[in-house]
Amino acid sequence: MKFSIERGALLKAVSQAQSVVERRNTIPILANVLIEAEGDTVSFRATDLDIEVVDKAPAQVEKAGATTVSAVTLHEIVRKLPDGALVTLSDDGVAGRLTVEAGRSNFNLATLPREDFPVMASSEYQSNFSAPAPVLRRLFDKSKFAISTEETRYYLNGVYLHVSDSDGGKVLRAVATDGHRLARIDADLPSGAEDMPGVIVPRKTVGELRKLLDDDEMKIAVSVSETKIRFATPNITLTSKVIDGTFPDYSRVIPVGNTRKMEVDAGDFAAAVDRVATVSSERSRAVKMALDQDKLVLSVNAPDSGAAEEELAVAYNDERLEIGFNAKYLLEIASQVDRENAVFLFNSAGDPTLMREGNDASAVYVVMPMRV
Amino acid sequence: MKFSIERGALLKAVSQAQSVVERRNTIPILANVLIEAEGDTVSFRATDLDIEVVDKAPAQVEKAGATTVSAVTLHEIVRKLPDGALVTLSDDGVAGRLTVEAGRSNFNLATLPREDFPVMASSEYQSNFSAPAPVLRRLFDKSKFAISTEETRYYLNGVYLHVSDSDGGKVLRAVATDGHRLARIDADLPSGAEDMPGVIVPRKTVGELRKLLDDDEMKIAVSVSETKIRFATPNITLTSKVIDGTFPDYSRVIPVGNTRKMEVDAGDFAAAVDRVATVSSERSRAVKMALDQDKLVLSVNAPDSGAAEEELAVAYNDERLEIGFNAKYLLEIASQVDRENAVFLFNSAGDPTLMREGNDASAVYVVMPMRV
Repeated sequence: MKFSIERGALLKAVSQAQSVVERRNTIPILANVLIEAEGDTVSFRATDLDIEVVDKAPAQVEKAGATTVSAVTLHEIVRKLPDGALVTLSDDGVAGRLTVEAGRSNFNLATLPREDFPVMASSEYQSNFSAPAPVLRRLFDKSKFAISTEETRYYLNGVYLHVSDSDGGKVLRAVATDGHRLARIDADLPSGAEDMPGVIVPRKTVGELRKLLDDDEMKIAVSVSETKIRFATPNITLTSKVIDGTFPDYSRVIPVGNTRKMEVDAGDFAAAVDRVATVSSERSRAVKMALDQDKLVLSVNAPDSGAAEEELAVAYNDERLEIGFNAKYLLEIASQVDRENAVFLFNSAGDPTLMREGNDASAVYVVMPMRV
Repeated sequence: MKFSIERGALLKAVSQAQSVVERRNTIPILANVLIEAEGDTVSFRATDLDIEVVDKAPAQVEKAGATTVSAVTLHEIVRKLPDGALVTLSDDGVAGRLTVEAGRSNFNLATLPREDFPVMASSEYQSNFSAPAPVLRRLFDKSKFAISTEETRYYLNGVYLHVSDSDGGKVLRAVATDGHRLARIDADLPSGAEDMPGVIVPRKTVGELRKLLDDDEMKIAVSVSETKIRFATPNITLTSKVIDGTFPDYSRVIPVGNTRKMEVDAGDFAAAVDRVATVSSERSRAVKMALDQDKLVLSVNAPDSGAAEEELAVAYNDERLEIGFNAKYLLEIASQVDRENAVFLFNSAGDPTLMREGNDASAVYVVMPMRV
């Protein structure tokens, strides 16, 4: 194998690959990236056995071939090479060494045989559709904060992506919850997605996927089966196993009878919660909301460090209500609001509270109260 | 006590104070800042018993007085208040509570009696002089990387600031070493500093001091005794105990007979060292320098990960030499060089190497070689 490639293109391709590689590996070859050169393209493939990413870049291929080399070391080297450098990678196919040359720099890296690299089995996908990057970005960005980190409830360790009914039609829906809060985000159903099976996309996949979604103009090809999901741009293909479990029936958690409505500027609300939470104890982080006619008083009372109180002007026209929340949960849902106003719908101090952006029902959050 | 103060001024004063406070304290009051209001000034004092910082800010004092309150909590609160807010701090003097008010925010913080706060004893200083901020900045910035972190050699855990002879006159000199490398930085002797006792300024003090030295126009008043050093600007006074120990006779370490001279662009050199070191093992980080007529070859050979080599054009006109160094040490001294060229003076592969900036002898670095 021998090819030359511009440093910027190489860095981009290797960056995405090395981020999938787990830092601590018991299987040595999983620390490596599989480099395959053929025609006028080189592909870089990395996997942790659950996620596989393949990144293609144009290159001048002098001799086709393939090898595997430490993803982290290759990435570090390329990162440190001067901008604009032409990098030549070659292996003699015998000694188990990859040579990386650029200008007066010369590196000689240990390789492992390409035959040992675990390439993810290709599968039949039941559903293939395409979606604009901003649509997928919104679905995952607004829901991922609620993903559970509790490993025993593994079926909550991801975003449940599925087709659902929403008044009048079908939607593509992302749901995540950890039992304390829940996010439910809807998007128009892309054509071709009607028969998509519901899948739980693991947290790490959501993170890796994010890098494919930065370009507003990009269309992402999505393929879904019962066991896998694949996202592809012309240059990058990300394939991931989905979580083998059943996502709970979340619809029962979303309150429908909450009638006490509070409307508040989301930025002001988040800043005030952040301030009063300063004095709360590390462990509980409880903030009390006391609602009265067009007035919200946020307060924290922590016996050892002190007390804090802040008043906010809100739109509220119902009877007096006192309800407590974890400050972190309030901050997280408030920071999801893109438009100015957040609308909270309460029932009682013991019932789950619903939050949405203005009157838009396509992004809905539920948060459990706590006793204060 | 009651006073009002602009949020920006308060934040600046409290920031400096809280950074001195140790995060983990067995003595509760050391987590607090002593606030003293009198006349039209409020002072904020914090200490870890080795360093004391006092920060003054103008304020409208309605009622003079003093109290102590958690430095971290107060800092967090002030940081989160909106820019430009007027903040009122008051205590009733009885209940042991400090009230912090700004706009519609109201905080009530637990206090501890001011009498319990350990104010550092004032002392007689043998030497008082003033030095421009950039001069002190250079002395400490260029030497601190060489401070030892080995606690058993506590007398190396700081910068040795003292008066010394340099050809033709006296200089103010900063020296730091950890036994593997050494930095010796000279500055013109400020008038009044002639009788300054040599003191070892602790690492933490060097760090805290740095914040006083940002302003190029600032003159810093320095006071030195056998046991303490004090740095003062009109608003901030930093007092620190010095390390009670004897700094070793460093002059014996600095080679005088090194004749093999290599001159190299410091930036190019650092970048090349950084690149070849990528493949070195975490533990040894050994880089070999092979010198020949106007040519330097940097190389690393790590059996498990690979090898790297890079050639650099240098000015060298002596016999062939191979010498090894810890890559981290080479990078650190190379990054001290402000002007373009670094001049290395070698003797043999087993002897300490000297590095200076061009022909300037006022900043000199020594680094021990390692076997490669």
